[in-house]
Amino acid sequence: MTVSSADGELKRDWPRWTQRCVELVLGQPIADSETTAAEIGPVIGVPALGLDALCSAAYGPEAALTMLLPLGLAGVEYMLPITLVIVALALIVYFSYRQTIAAYPNGGGSYTVAKENLGPRVGILAAAALACDYMLNVAVAISAGVGALASALPWLLPHLLGVCLAVLALIVYLNLRGTRDAGVAFLAPTYAFVAALFAVLAIGGTKTWLAGGQPTPVVAPPALPKAVGAVSLWLICRAFANGCTAMTGIEAVSNGVGAFREPRAKNAQRTLTLIVVILASLLAGIALLCRAYGIGATVPGSAQYQSVLSELTAAVVGRGAFYYVTMASIVTLLCLSANTSFAGFPRLCSLLANDGYLPETFGLRGRRLVFTAGVLLLAVLSALLLIGFGGVTDRLIPLFAVGALLAFTFSQAGMVAHWRRERGRGHRRALVLNFAGALATAVTTLVVGVSKFVEGAWVAILALVLTAATFSGIQRHFAKVRRELLDRSPIDPRAPEPPLVVIPLGAWDKLARRSLHFARRLSDDIHAVHVTGIDCEPELAIEWERFVAAPARAAGTTVPELVLKRSRYRRFFGPLLEYVHELRARHPERDLVVVVPSVVARRWYERPLHNERGALLKALLRVRTDDRVIVVSLPLHLAH
Amino acid sequence: MTVSSADGELKRDWPRWTQRCVELVLGQPIADSETTAAEIGPVIGVPALGLDALCSAAYGPEAALTMLLPLGLAGVEYMLPITLVIVALALIVYFSYRQTIAAYPNGGGSYTVAKENLGPRVGILAAAALACDYMLNVAVAISAGVGALASALPWLLPHLLGVCLAVLALIVYLNLRGTRDAGVAFLAPTYAFVAALFAVLAIGGTKTWLAGGQPTPVVAPPALPKAVGAVSLWLICRAFANGCTAMTGIEAVSNGVGAFREPRAKNAQRTLTLIVVILASLLAGIALLCRAYGIGATVPGSAQYQSVLSELTAAVVGRGAFYYVTMASIVTLLCLSANTSFAGFPRLCSLLANDGYLPETFGLRGRRLVFTAGVLLLAVLSALLLIGFGGVTDRLIPLFAVGALLAFTFSQAGMVAHWRRERGRGHRRALVLNFAGALATAVTTLVVGVSKFVEGAWVAILALVLTAATFSGIQRHFAKVRRELLDRSPIDPRAPEPPLVVIPLGAWDKLARRSLHFARRLSDDIHAVHVTGIDCEPELAIEWERFVAAPARAAGTTVPELVLKRSRYRRFFGPLLEYVHELRARHPERDLVVVVPSVVARRWYERPLHNERGALLKALLRVRTDDRVIVVSLPLHLAH
Repeated sequence: MTVSSADGELKRDWPRWTQRCVELVLGQPIADSETTAAEIGPVIGVPALGLDALCSAAYGPEAALTMLLPLGLAGVEYMLPITLVIVALALIVYFSYRQTIAAYPNGGGSYTVAKENLGPRVGILAAAALACDYMLNVAVAISAGVGALASALPWLLPHLLGVCLAVLALIVYLNLRGTRDAGVAFLAPTYAFVAALFAVLAIGGTKTWLAGGQPTPVVAPPALPKAVGAVSLWLICRAFANGCTAMTGIEAVSNGVGAFREPRAKNAQRTLTLIVVILASLLAGIALLCRAYGIGATVPGSAQYQSVLSELTAAVVGRGAFYYVTMASIVTLLCLSANTSFAGFPRLCSLLANDGYLPETFGLRGRRLVFTAGVLLLAVLSALLLIGFGGVTDRLIPLFAVGALLAFTFSQAGMVAHWRRERGRGHRRALVLNFAGALATAVTTLVVGVSKFVEGAWVAILALVLTAATFSGIQRHFAKVRRELLDRSPIDPRAPEPPLVVIPLGAWDKLARRSLHFARRLSDDIHAVHVTGIDCEPELAIEWERFVAAPARAAGTTVPELVLKRSRYRRFFGPLLEYVHELRARHPERDLVVVVPSVVARRWYERPLHNERGALLKALLRVRTDDRVIVVSLPLHLAH
Repeated sequence: MTVSSADGELKRDWPRWTQRCVELVLGQPIADSETTAAEIGPVIGVPALGLDALCSAAYGPEAALTMLLPLGLAGVEYMLPITLVIVALALIVYFSYRQTIAAYPNGGGSYTVAKENLGPRVGILAAAALACDYMLNVAVAISAGVGALASALPWLLPHLLGVCLAVLALIVYLNLRGTRDAGVAFLAPTYAFVAALFAVLAIGGTKTWLAGGQPTPVVAPPALPKAVGAVSLWLICRAFANGCTAMTGIEAVSNGVGAFREPRAKNAQRTLTLIVVILASLLAGIALLCRAYGIGATVPGSAQYQSVLSELTAAVVGRGAFYYVTMASIVTLLCLSANTSFAGFPRLCSLLANDGYLPETFGLRGRRLVFTAGVLLLAVLSALLLIGFGGVTDRLIPLFAVGALLAFTFSQAGMVAHWRRERGRGHRRALVLNFAGALATAVTTLVVGVSKFVEGAWVAILALVLTAATFSGIQRHFAKVRRELLDRSPIDPRAPEPPLVVIPLGAWDKLARRSLHFARRLSDDIHAVHVTGIDCEPELAIEWERFVAAPARAAGTTVPELVLKRSRYRRFFGPLLEYVHELRARHPERDLVVVVPSVVARRWYERPLHNERGALLKALLRVRTDDRVIVVSLPLHLAH
């Protein structure tokens, strides 16, 4: 046994300048011993994992207020209690996820917790729910951000899809450099967003307090429409359900514990605390100021449409420079909030791959420790969604949130089971907390699911079930493959019998000569097959006698056989495969090697001109023959 | 040498029901001895090859009249002389193409004629011009037809691209069944179109004659706008240039002589006569009636827009059932006129392939004698054009016609050279005719090229030059390959030296055991390479000792070597390739075989789950090593 370290690997296998370019673009590779360099703390944790949650402050209240539009001014009054319920819910979820992180310091996403405590079936449902939600989040977040950008810069309107894909490419690129690099890149926009909104809330709050609760807006918000409907439990439920989109993204931290530096659990908890405190303050502050300034939603798609945060900011500080800075930071963050999915989805995929629910590739870390396959899969899926919907994903929004809430519920329920089993110090308090979380999220899931069912939540549920079924199918397949590949027997020390060899032959040239030379090393039983038309008398027969048969006879070695196959239908693959099947039937116990020579052009743009037949032949041989048919690819590199 | 006919080929290589389905969809295969069954006469020749030319009657006059709009009523007066010039030009082209067909009874497209008489450079320019024009014609014809359909059925408007692609798919499908099948399928719409238009012209002509040249329209055409510009030579030239789009498509018959039944030349000539007579009568009739009824174009894109033929038909017969039948037949034929390109382009590609300007595949006839690769290439290119322009190809129209006219000119000039060389009976008359044709088309090309240059003809010329350069590049490449592959030396009768063998190994399983078994057949010099992380102590080392090394020692055979490669950067391909390069450097004179085992799943949808690493490894070995590195694909078919 030779053991050697592959230290030189980075220098030798690509030309130096290619290597340089790759390093410049994707960053230096990170060795296994340097993983700490890629780990993050709470400060970078917020932009790396928390953008989805923070952005909720921009669209959650808006979604709820839009639902309350029919109630007119009274609707704004209902907003405060609804927001308080949502904030309370977020806090319950926060405390129970804190516990989850403490209990699963190696990463306690919904998938892990549900799987460990409620069994693999529930685990896989939770994973499917999260996976669908992560994917939707990318498409919806990017298109919402780009949509907001285009409403400020109308010349972007004809290029919506292009801009969406460009933003996606940027996020994918940064994530391929690593979760930390993405977090660092988004640090400034994130804290600009937080600072701007807190400033608006602080100024507005102060003005409201000074004015005794009745502040005068600098720019008056559009008058609310007359009430056209009476309040009903159904309407409040739907407003609440819409507002609950604000809860998506809280999950991400518990799923991404592995990205933090030691002490992992503590750092993750601190990040979660930061995110939830910011989110809860923003939600509560926005609701309070909306009531104080009498701000409601405007009809989406109408000419008067304005986002709630735009109305609010204008009312508090007027339409000066600060207004534009605030709006810009909101739009930027909306675009970037897809980043949370890119931090969560690949980690989820790697966990699934470790348990056999996805191919192994998803469990492999790339040069920057990123789970490359997961990042690329998410990029492709969300790009397809964006392209399919032309960059406008409004119709996807109702599908949202159900998945995240379902995953929350599974995770909390799993923690309840966990504490019932693990009876340590304080397990009773912990159980009560997680039970409260489970109950709250279950009720919320039910309310959101029912109130959004007709709007499209059924599609989300269907997608979830199909995704879960796919995961299970893949797992069953790999389990089967593992059983079939299992082999604990030693090698057969006897000399193996020589195989039959088939060489498809067009003309006598360098390819033919090299194929034959290689074949003679394997066996004396060589069949060169030439497929030709029904009438033509091929020149090859003469060349064969001259260049192969005669020299072989002269040297006293076995003469290879030339087989002419005539096709009336100008077919090439049919006759060849037929002959392979014929030989296999005649010698069922022997291996059969097919030698497929191929030309490798020097320049990449010349390569598509060659070997499409060779590739097709290899694919056909692979699929339509059995284990005993082995393909040898014999390359011939062109010198010029 | 064994010779056998592959008669059974159709039965054995696919399951019976797959065979049946393919035959039902694509038709029975046609044997080389039955080619006459796929050949056509003049009646089917018109729909198979003439739709492009016939449809010109629908858009040629319209295009010319639109250009004359600024002249108001006076513009309509100029229409008649312009049309007469175009008709005369068409007749000159007709007579000279008749001669070309007679002189080149095996197919005398512009490419052949120009190549044979003016040299390969001019030939390839003509081929490029035609190829670009054929491709443009598909996109423009389909989108024009579908656009006209959608203006009658507005609910189609949001699905323009989808409908365009569906029509394209239909035409591609019929052409894959053969030129004859496509011609038969389009027989009824073609003659319905001709009958309807001739009926309109006959009725209109009679009414005009009875009314002494001043007929009363049944439905009055929209009043012509006031003249806003004076007549100028430039305007007339541009109107003429636009009208010349009517000339595209005449070329197709001479290019497709091979599709006709014997006597080939006679049948092709008859078809050409039919097409040109119909086209010339329609053009002249339309111009005459437009003048009689005072019909001009309407502004395209305006609310009042109506096609000239719609105005004319309404004026002659009113908006009854007959009007709608006529309109429907025009729209249908516009959609289908892309068929001409599908008859011409693949034939052109096959000629180019025979001369080495395209890969061999383009010269191979498929099961229905069609040049499948050419049909599919045209389908892909035109689908990309349609998708790129969203199904609305108005901006492509100015690129049109220059290519066709240029090809005409080359072809006519070629014929002049031909007659100067071949001094047979009547060669003097033929020379004069072709010279007239060459002169007329050259002048027309110049007029059209100059007057359309800024509108986009420069793009067409650029595309043409690039296409010609591509053809030449491919030809040079294949010539080089042929030289490099040439080998007139006999086989080396000595026994070849055994190669080095490298086996990438993950774990000890069935794949590993079979790879090793196969490798031992090739050589005693086997290197099993296991790539692993920097810290882990692989189990494989123990398994190797137990299952490989110990049994080999016990049997007294050579013990294969296990090589452990440690990577700090979680890389797999790098260390493996590095080791291959190392071995090659140590033994530059020996072949090196890499055995890549791979799992073949039973069901097609399971296959993407496997072997992406194997495929990548094979690709890397192919491109980044040399001729001495040979890859063996060892399949393992799963039983379940």
